Amino acid sequence: MFIARSEYDRGINTFSPEGRLFQVEYSLEAIKLGSTAIGIATSHGILLGVEKRVTSPLLVSSSIEKIVEIDSHIGCAMSGLQADARSMIEHARIESQNHAFHYNEKLGVESCTQAICDLALRFGEGADGEESIMSRPFGVALLIAGWDDDGPQLYHAEPSGTFYRYDAKAIGSGSEGAQAELQTEYHRSLTLEEAEQLVLKTLKQVMEEKLDAKNVQLASVTKDKGFRIYGEDAMAEVVGRLESN
Amino acid sequence: MFIARSEYDRGINTFSPEGRLFQVEYSLEAIKLGSTAIGIATSHGILLGVEKRVTSPLLVSSSIEKIVEIDSHIGCAMSGLQADARSMIEHARIESQNHAFHYNEKLGVESCTQAICDLALRFGEGADGEESIMSRPFGVALLIAGWDDDGPQLYHAEPSGTFYRYDAKAIGSGSEGAQAELQTEYHRSLTLEEAEQLVLKTLKQVMEEKLDAKNVQLASVTKDKGFRIYGEDAMAEVVGRLESN
Amino acid sequence: MFIARSEYDRGINTFSPEGRLFQVEYSLEAIKLGSTAIGIATSHGILLGVEKRVTSPLLVSSSIEKIVEIDSHIGCAMSGLQADARSMIEHARIESQNHAFHYNEKLGVESCTQAICDLALRFGEGADGEESIMSRPFGVALLIAGWDDDGPQLYHAEPSGTFYRYDAKAIGSGSEGAQAELQTEYHRSLTLEEAEQLVLKTLKQVMEEKLDAKNVQLASVTKDKGFRIYGEDAMAEVVGRLESN
Amino acid sequence: MFIARSEYDRGINTFSPEGRLFQVEYSLEAIKLGSTAIGIATSHGILLGVEKRVTSPLLVSSSIEKIVEIDSHIGCAMSGLQADARSMIEHARIESQNHAFHYNEKLGVESCTQAICDLALRFGEGADGEESIMSRPFGVALLIAGWDDDGPQLYHAEPSGTFYRYDAKAIGSGSEGAQAELQTEYHRSLTLEEAEQLVLKTLKQVMEEKLDAKNVQLASVTKDKGFRIYGEDAMAEVVGRLESN
Amino acid sequence: MFIARSEYDRGINTFSPEGRLFQVEYSLEAIKLGSTAIGIATSHGILLGVEKRVTSPLLVSSSIEKIVEIDSHIGCAMSGLQADARSMIEHARIESQNHAFHYNEKLGVESCTQAICDLALRFGEGADGEESIMSRPFGVALLIAGWDDDGPQLYHAEPSGTFYRYDAKAIGSGSEGAQAELQTEYHRSLTLEEAEQLVLKTLKQVMEEKLDAKNVQLASVTKDKGFRIYGEDAMAEVVGRLESN
Amino acid sequence: MFIARSEYDRGINTFSPEGRLFQVEYSLEAIKLGSTAIGIATSHGILLGVEKRVTSPLLVSSSIEKIVEIDSHIGCAMSGLQADARSMIEHARIESQNHAFHYNEKLGVESCTQAICDLALRFGEGADGEESIMSRPFGVALLIAGWDDDGPQLYHAEPSGTFYRYDAKAIGSGSEGAQAELQTEYHRSLTLEEAEQLVLKTLKQVMEEKLDAKNVQLASVTKDKGFRIYGEDAMAEVVGRLESN
Amino acid sequence: MFIARSEYDRGINTFSPEGRLFQVEYSLEAIKLGSTAIGIATSHGILLGVEKRVTSPLLVSSSIEKIVEIDSHIGCAMSGLQADARSMIEHARIESQNHAFHYNEKLGVESCTQAICDLALRFGEGADGEESIMSRPFGVALLIAGWDDDGPQLYHAEPSGTFYRYDAKAIGSGSEGAQAELQTEYHRSLTLEEAEQLVLKTLKQVMEEKLDAKNVQLASVTKDKGFRIYGEDAMAEVVGRLESN
Repeated sequence: MFIARSEYDRGINTFSPEGRLFQVEYSLEAIKLGSTAIGIATSHGILLGVEKRVTSPLLVSSSIEKIVEIDSHIGCAMSGLQADARSMIEHARIESQNHAFHYNEKLGVESCTQAICDLALRFGEGADGEESIMSRPFGVALLIAGWDDDGPQLYHAEPSGTFYRYDAKAIGSGSEGAQAELQTEYHRSLTLEEAEQLVLKTLKQVMEEKLDAKNVQLASVTKDKGFRIYGEDAMAEVVGRLESN
Repeated sequence: MFIARSEYDRGINTFSPEGRLFQVEYSLEAIKLGSTAIGIATSHGILLGVEKRVTSPLLVSSSIEKIVEIDSHIGCAMSGLQADARSMIEHARIESQNHAFHYNEKLGVESCTQAICDLALRFGEGADGEESIMSRPFGVALLIAGWDDDGPQLYHAEPSGTFYRYDAKAIGSGSEGAQAELQTEYHRSLTLEEAEQLVLKTLKQVMEEKLDAKNVQLASVTKDKGFRIYGEDAMAEVVGRLESN
Repeated sequence: MFIARSEYDRGINTFSPEGRLFQVEYSLEAIKLGSTAIGIATSHGILLGVEKRVTSPLLVSSSIEKIVEIDSHIGCAMSGLQADARSMIEHARIESQNHAFHYNEKLGVESCTQAICDLALRFGEGADGEESIMSRPFGVALLIAGWDDDGPQLYHAEPSGTFYRYDAKAIGSGSEGAQAELQTEYHRSLTLEEAEQLVLKTLKQVMEEKLDAKNVQLASVTKDKGFRIYGEDAMAEVVGRLESN
Repeated sequence: MFIARSEYDRGINTFSPEGRLFQVEYSLEAIKLGSTAIGIATSHGILLGVEKRVTSPLLVSSSIEKIVEIDSHIGCAMSGLQADARSMIEHARIESQNHAFHYNEKLGVESCTQAICDLALRFGEGADGEESIMSRPFGVALLIAGWDDDGPQLYHAEPSGTFYRYDAKAIGSGSEGAQAELQTEYHRSLTLEEAEQLVLKTLKQVMEEKLDAKNVQLASVTKDKGFRIYGEDAMAEVVGRLESN
Repeated sequence: MFIARSEYDRGINTFSPEGRLFQVEYSLEAIKLGSTAIGIATSHGILLGVEKRVTSPLLVSSSIEKIVEIDSHIGCAMSGLQADARSMIEHARIESQNHAFHYNEKLGVESCTQAICDLALRFGEGADGEESIMSRPFGVALLIAGWDDDGPQLYHAEPSGTFYRYDAKAIGSGSEGAQAELQTEYHRSLTLEEAEQLVLKTLKQVMEEKLDAKNVQLASVTKDKGFRIYGEDAMAEVVGRLESN
Repeated sequence: MFIARSEYDRGINTFSPEGRLFQVEYSLEAIKLGSTAIGIATSHGILLGVEKRVTSPLLVSSSIEKIVEIDSHIGCAMSGLQADARSMIEHARIESQNHAFHYNEKLGVESCTQAICDLALRFGEGADGEESIMSRPFGVALLIAGWDDDGPQLYHAEPSGTFYRYDAKAIGSGSEGAQAELQTEYHRSLTLEEAEQLVLKTLKQVMEEKLDAKNVQLASVTKDKGFRIYGEDAMAEVVGRLESN
Repeated sequence: MFIARSEYDRGINTFSPEGRLFQVEYSLEAIKLGSTAIGIATSHGILLGVEKRVTSPLLVSSSIEKIVEIDSHIGCAMSGLQADARSMIEHARIESQNHAFHYNEKLGVESCTQAICDLALRFGEGADGEESIMSRPFGVALLIAGWDDDGPQLYHAEPSGTFYRYDAKAIGSGSEGAQAELQTEYHRSLTLEEAEQLVLKTLKQVMEEKLDAKNVQLASVTKDKGFRIYGEDAMAEVVGRLESN
């Protein structure tokens, strides 16, 4: 019942009689309002793809950064509140730099994901002197892609601080349809090129705007080149290839 | 009466007129929503078993960590909010390392459990400079299994900070049925192999999904090998044995 | 009137128009939900006895610790929230150790009780750097038994921080009936053995379960042996003696 | 009107539209629930007397401490919440010791009273590093009796931090009737013995229980002997004298 | 409208839609409940007079201190909450001592008044390390009388932190009638003796009790003698003179 | 609608659905309750004039300070809560002294105004160690007049922290009528004497009391003499000149 | 539904059930109440233009500063609460100076924008020792124009902490109409002079007042001259040119 529920859902961090944390659940709704993002892990590398919502022809689409680098071997696609994501990613970058500095090795992809999730869990707590943390759950989900000694990996991190590894995962407003598509089409022997096409094809199905080289963005993580955002030429090429199919 | 109750249940740490702490009681509900976990103590060692909820075929089931190591001689199965459990287990690991460092002996299983429960009790208190603590009760229950100078032991720790020792205990959504089964089947002369089969058989009865080697996980604590998570091969073998019965 | 009362009873530390502190009164209700505990002071020593609620045959009854040692000459039985009691007892143990260290003498039983009550009174206050204190009243009552230079003494400490000395006292869910029984049967010339039987007989009358050597626990404080918890054999013996009467 | 009043009375330290501080007024109600205490100042010394509520025959009446020493020349009787009084009296004792240490003279009775009242006024304020203070008004009134260079003095201190000097004063549940009696019977030429009888006679009238040597307590402050609590023999004697009249 | 007003008047320091600060206005009501105090400035000195409410014949009237010294050249009469006044006056005394110590000159009367008002304004603010301040407006008004290089001066300080200089001013429950009387009778050429009689005559008119030498108190500030409280003899003399008129 | 508005207007610093900050708007109402103040900037200097509300003939009108000096070259007229203004002006004085000390030059008039407005904006924030700030918006508006290297300037500063420069500006209860008058009569070639008469004429129109030399106050800032408050003689002269017109 | 929505919109930083942050959305309304501001990026430089609301003929229009310098190569136009903007711009200026000092290079335009947005995101958090931050979202939007190594750039920063780069962007009350106009008229080959005329023409269409040289303000950022506010003569010239068209 709506009225009864609303009595528990404004406390930032309070259980309802059914054992639910409403503010965390509501933050998931913020993500469902976000643009769609997709990640696909193959044995050759991980591919990330996002929809960009270019709300005005005068908006410079390259300034919509939905895929960013965390370290040379880890990148991340996001859906939800852009400004919240910046905090989480800044945190991950510092963790990664610190790890490299102290231990002279690259931060593992799972450790990186866990560092982000530990930060997410800490909302509503007092400042601990280390880092600025939020007074509400983060309103953003991340797809974290990286290649470390355990090979290529794709993680999905939620505002609740929960994370799981996926072979392929979609988040954001089109995630339901996109995940169904991925479930049908994904197989472990995909090449990176096939993954590129699968990401674009899936985004095309769930985007309201007609997909073109400006309103989507791809990135990959491979063993040799690490994290790499596709430039304008590369985007034009892969989108062109999609259309020619 | 619902209305009257709701007037007391949002204060994080407030007594109702009947002397109840509702937020703590509600956190137990969060655990009842969690996946089932089972622990069985035998004279040969303790066996832990959990259900894994593999919500998507693209989810990598090994990334669902419901059983984790605390120290080489203590492990733990959980049910409830995964991210909350991480905080408690991290706390237990540090306690265990500190104890070993300062006293040059392994932390006792009961002491380890008490350290976790002391942390659980402290929700809603200000930061004490040592550790980040929660502003609400932890939404997780733990089954802590270990072998110290007092032999094999199994403890059940609740969000209220209460803990008791059990011969066999089930927690999570299927705990009611599972505990009844354990009560019927448990006897002190069980071998570890019999305990494996009893855990699997009990999980099978309460799980919604068909049990297979991917959606359950076993671990054991023995005197010689300490805490040991069953690998893929071992899991396949014991699940196979269950099916052949 | 219920409605009017409820307007004052959620402020942690606020007077009602009648000059009452409801949260403290409600914490007494938490104690009335607890298991029964009894203390009897004789000239030979003090006897403590508690009911253990063994809610499952798989629960190891020795892990239900309702009687604990504070120092070699002081022990304590409790009723109410077990986790709350741990904080108070830990506090008392530290006070006792500190006193022995600084003054090279045993902490007096009344001083020990007052240290516990001072802690109880301080709920709802800010951290004072010394000790972690509660944001609500403690939901536990204690029977503190000890032998110091003033001989054997039994104190009853409440969540309000009030304490009185008693010849014999019962707390918890069966306290009303038990106190009436004690009032009838207690006399100053009781031997320790008679006190054992009086405690067991009284517990038997108020317990819902049939009393046996597993679901009750006795302890004594005497001049020579100090605080001593009855082992399994001793428990079996005294319970046997009760049944043979 | 009740409803309107209740809107202002839960803020700890807020004025009502009529300029009243309800929490302070409610704390006075807590005192009216307390046991009766009486003080009488004579030129030979001050006499303090209190009712003890011995709620159970197994309660050791000497553990009900309603009259306590502050310093060798100052004592105090209380009515209201016993645990609150302990904080105030501890504060007064420290002030008195500090004064004696720093200035090599006894703390004046009025200064002692003011120190207590300054503490009372400070409820609801943040910690100031010196002393643990309350988050609500103290629920206790004190009769402070002492003999300094200005001779024998009796002060009445309230939760509001207000204090006045009295020739004779009653507080607690029977204060109304007792004060009327004192007003009729008091005269400045009373001897200490007459004051003893007047206190006992007045308590007898307002106590629900029949007055005996166990449920009342007297104390005196004289120039020569300072603060002195009546022992069991002395109590028996004065109560006996009352009965023989 | 009452209901609408009440929505704004419990926030300690919040504007109502009409731009009013209700808590400050309510504190003025606390003063209207207080005893009447009067100040008259003449060219020969300032005269302060207060009503004392001797609520019991056993109350020692000299312990009702409604006129106090701030420094040898400044005194102050008060109406409202006595305990609040103590804080303000203590603050003024310290300011005055500090000023004399640092600058080797007496604190000006206006500066003294401003120091008190600055403290009054700061209610509801956090501790600033210097001084304990209130969480609500002070419930007291002061008449501050002093003689500095600018001659005799009388100031009226309110809970709002506002202060003005007056030739003659009445505060407290009888202030309305008293101020009207002062307005009619005051002239600049009054002698101190005439001021004494005007103060007493005015108090007599507004007091409920019959005025006598015990229930009023006078004090004066003159160039030569500074602040001086009238002793018992002086009070008897001036009251006698009033009655003989 | 009144009800809906009231839901947003008690949060000290919260936006309403229409993007309004009600507490700031309400503080403007406090200013509309204040006495009228007027400032006029001419090429020869700035003239400030205020109404004084002499509520009693016994009130010493010179103690109503509605125009004060900030530095030798800057002065200020105020309307609203007098005590709030003191904080702002004290802040401005310190800023001005600090600037002169550090940079050996006079603080600019605009910089001085901005320093005041920065303080105004910071209400509701925690203490920052530098200065005591308010928990609500300041309830005062200021007209800041000064002459620096950029010549004569008049600024109007609001509780919102907004400030603008004006040729002529009226604030307070009569501001609407006064501003209309100023708009009609102001021209850039006004002499200071003409400005004096314009201020008085405008105040006369909006004041409820009959204007005389006691209930208004003028001040000027000129290049040569800096800030100068008109003494009694000067006030008598200019008011006399007004009446003779 | 209005009622339901209002239950979530007063918590400063709380999600609604639909995943929305109402206080942030309401702050956008504050901007829609603000004056219109326009930015146009050309290959020759960026042009900023704002409407000034000259609410009184006695208001000195040059004191309405809606366009300000951040550094010699970055400037900014604003719409919304003027006082809020000052905090953000002061922050940006310090960041820019610090960067230049530490790295001996100019702060990039995007980095400058991000520094502002990071500050915006941090509302509602505790003080972090570095800078005074707001307890509510900033009620201001900025158009940040600058020329760095990446050439001329225009950014739009929102209260949510989100920022995007634009070729041309309008904010404030007339933004809807203005943005439509810009979309029609903007092309990449605009000269600065054409941009001047496009800004003025667009402002003219959306302003309620008749546009003249006093109620609009232009500024430009070019490679050679950096940030430059148009003086009175320049404004007269470009407005004259608009009228002659």
